[in-house]
Amino acid sequence: MGFLKVVPLEEALKVIDSFGLKPQIEEIPLEEALGRVLAEDVKAPIDVPPFDRATVDGYALLSKDTWKASESEPVRLEIVGQINAGDVPTIELKEGQAVGISTGAPLPKGADAVAMLEEVDVEGDELIVYKPYYPQAGVMKAGSDIVKGKEVLKASKKLTFKDTALLSALGFEKVKVFKKPKVAVISTGNEIILPGDELGVGKIYDINGRAITDAIRELGAEAYFLGIAKDDEASLKEKIFEGLKYDMVILSGGASAGVRDLTSSIIEAHGEVFIHGIAIQPGKPTIIGQIQGKPVFGLPGYPTSCLTNFTLLVAPLLRKLLGLKGEHRKVQKKLAFKVFSVKGRRQFLPVKIEGEEAVPILKGSGAVTSFVDADGFIEVPETVEILEEGEEVEVFLF
Amino acid sequence: MGFLKVVPLEEALKVIDSFGLKPQIEEIPLEEALGRVLAEDVKAPIDVPPFDRATVDGYALLSKDTWKASESEPVRLEIVGQINAGDVPTIELKEGQAVGISTGAPLPKGADAVAMLEEVDVEGDELIVYKPYYPQAGVMKAGSDIVKGKEVLKASKKLTFKDTALLSALGFEKVKVFKKPKVAVISTGNEIILPGDELGVGKIYDINGRAITDAIRELGAEAYFLGIAKDDEASLKEKIFEGLKYDMVILSGGASAGVRDLTSSIIEAHGEVFIHGIAIQPGKPTIIGQIQGKPVFGLPGYPTSCLTNFTLLVAPLLRKLLGLKGEHRKVQKKLAFKVFSVKGRRQFLPVKIEGEEAVPILKGSGAVTSFVDADGFIEVPETVEILEEGEEVEVFLF
Repeated sequence: MGFLKVVPLEEALKVIDSFGLKPQIEEIPLEEALGRVLAEDVKAPIDVPPFDRATVDGYALLSKDTWKASESEPVRLEIVGQINAGDVPTIELKEGQAVGISTGAPLPKGADAVAMLEEVDVEGDELIVYKPYYPQAGVMKAGSDIVKGKEVLKASKKLTFKDTALLSALGFEKVKVFKKPKVAVISTGNEIILPGDELGVGKIYDINGRAITDAIRELGAEAYFLGIAKDDEASLKEKIFEGLKYDMVILSGGASAGVRDLTSSIIEAHGEVFIHGIAIQPGKPTIIGQIQGKPVFGLPGYPTSCLTNFTLLVAPLLRKLLGLKGEHRKVQKKLAFKVFSVKGRRQFLPVKIEGEEAVPILKGSGAVTSFVDADGFIEVPETVEILEEGEEVEVFLF
Repeated sequence: MGFLKVVPLEEALKVIDSFGLKPQIEEIPLEEALGRVLAEDVKAPIDVPPFDRATVDGYALLSKDTWKASESEPVRLEIVGQINAGDVPTIELKEGQAVGISTGAPLPKGADAVAMLEEVDVEGDELIVYKPYYPQAGVMKAGSDIVKGKEVLKASKKLTFKDTALLSALGFEKVKVFKKPKVAVISTGNEIILPGDELGVGKIYDINGRAITDAIRELGAEAYFLGIAKDDEASLKEKIFEGLKYDMVILSGGASAGVRDLTSSIIEAHGEVFIHGIAIQPGKPTIIGQIQGKPVFGLPGYPTSCLTNFTLLVAPLLRKLLGLKGEHRKVQKKLAFKVFSVKGRRQFLPVKIEGEEAVPILKGSGAVTSFVDADGFIEVPETVEILEEGEEVEVFLF
């Protein structure tokens, strides 16, 4: 066993791709759609507004009746009723007639303009109009806001409150979104205990379980932290099989090589191990396998290493299943100071982002503070020994 | 009634402040803390790591035993056992002794360095050391990562996965966060129907209810959309009183002045109306009152106006209750083109952000597309008639 089969990162990604997991679609109520990812392009099924609508409080009329109106020679029209917002207008307006109308109400047949309340006078059932109104004055035409059939949202859009509001305005009660993949998360190691447990000699509190679980939730998928497996076959096997109820299983370190071998042999006994070590630093001790058709990932134990490999290997898969575009979130920054690497070693170096600079974190991936400070990492290829201060670098964000 | 008591925005904000709502604190399990806002500064209750910890697989030893070691004259030490991660070491190492140790395991008493597995040889129970080790080589000292008592997180921090992971590493099972305020949201108007309802003549689908509900959720508070109240006293009163089960009530629209007066008179009958109109555009038809000590907001019906007033009046209150710092989220941009305003009118103009530019939206606040396009708004004070192209503007983000 060991690292006999160390492979390039690209081969590991091909293996993950070969699992053939595809985004799934479900239909959910619009009221639960905030933050979900749209699974289809959306076209407007109706005109907005659906009818010619008054945009002011006033009087609906025939514009041509007003064309000769002026301050000195106002026009008088017969008021034949009142239409409020929500009313179904039954009136058909004829020449010389006007009807009271409130903002948002539908224009009656015949009418093509609305005179504002503040611009007219009323005497008994007569409306006095002092100026000409052009056709559509005070009116929002049916479909002038959004025309029926227009594409309003694209698939893969993560729905914000503006999107759900737009879908509501278009009458969508339900919406098709990508299903959230469900991920089981397991921490391993005899030295790892859960918060709340007593801190005995030689023990440390779990960090990776919480980090991976909540990182998955931030991505928009569902994560279930199953707790800690001890460094023995029974405990590991039990947790892994509990994890197979979900869409995939992620284990993290075991600081020691022994746990890794144990994990690997359990996967091999019940499924298949495809990758046992990747030729990147950090990431050598990464395992990729499957049991019962479910991907099983074994990530390194050191928190920064764990998160780097999660970002390189698992996050792109989750983004794909969630229907999100782009494998990684990346930003361009300038390197804050010169760093040295080892030729022939492909390294992913944690960095903190400060303004336009990427500041390398050299504290070591075992430190919790490295993990806390790091916003992402940069790649230093095999062929590169020195990255210069001020050099343009691409930061993969956690 | 009407707009007799139109007041400046600042007075409306003072009224809201005078309600005296204070952020509330609750203790929740760490596993539910992602995205919540921390209610207290957090100090490390333990050293991390809590003990001197091996950072490599190898042999723990006394560094001074190795100071004369070289390739040509290696030092031989007696191997007296093995300590794995999670073990409680019972050995006390004496001069001339070494003990096998795995990454993450605690150093035994006496030992002060770890020789890497790859750098030594073993013959029987003898360890052969070819180079000197300085004290602390291969060791992470207790408290060297995070020292007990150090402040690690500040109150008002919105917890990311890195924060929850850090809290886990420090052994926190529970965490004190600010309670989420609970907000009831009601749409009003005879013309408004819910998605799923049949679109009859003169009806339009709700947009504000969904928009305000999901905007509140994006902020991190809890929102409950109670549906639509008709333009009659019984229906409005029923919905408002249903809303009083929550911490505050937000009504939006009806488009017509009648609904506004009805809302106002219901609040007055059962509580108090403090503000009936604010001297800003849009926002004149905004009502602020209280019933049974609960704030009741009546926002304008036009979607962009509704959201602008929500952002100016309600969002700062929610941010305060959520424990978030800063009343508004703002960015500096340059105006994309010249805009004219009316002197003596304080205007909030919706804008779309495109790169470094704020592009004014002049389509009218009744349009759904204005609402969809707008990322926020800029203020045009009473004294200003013209904002020049390229002028620096502050955009309040929705």
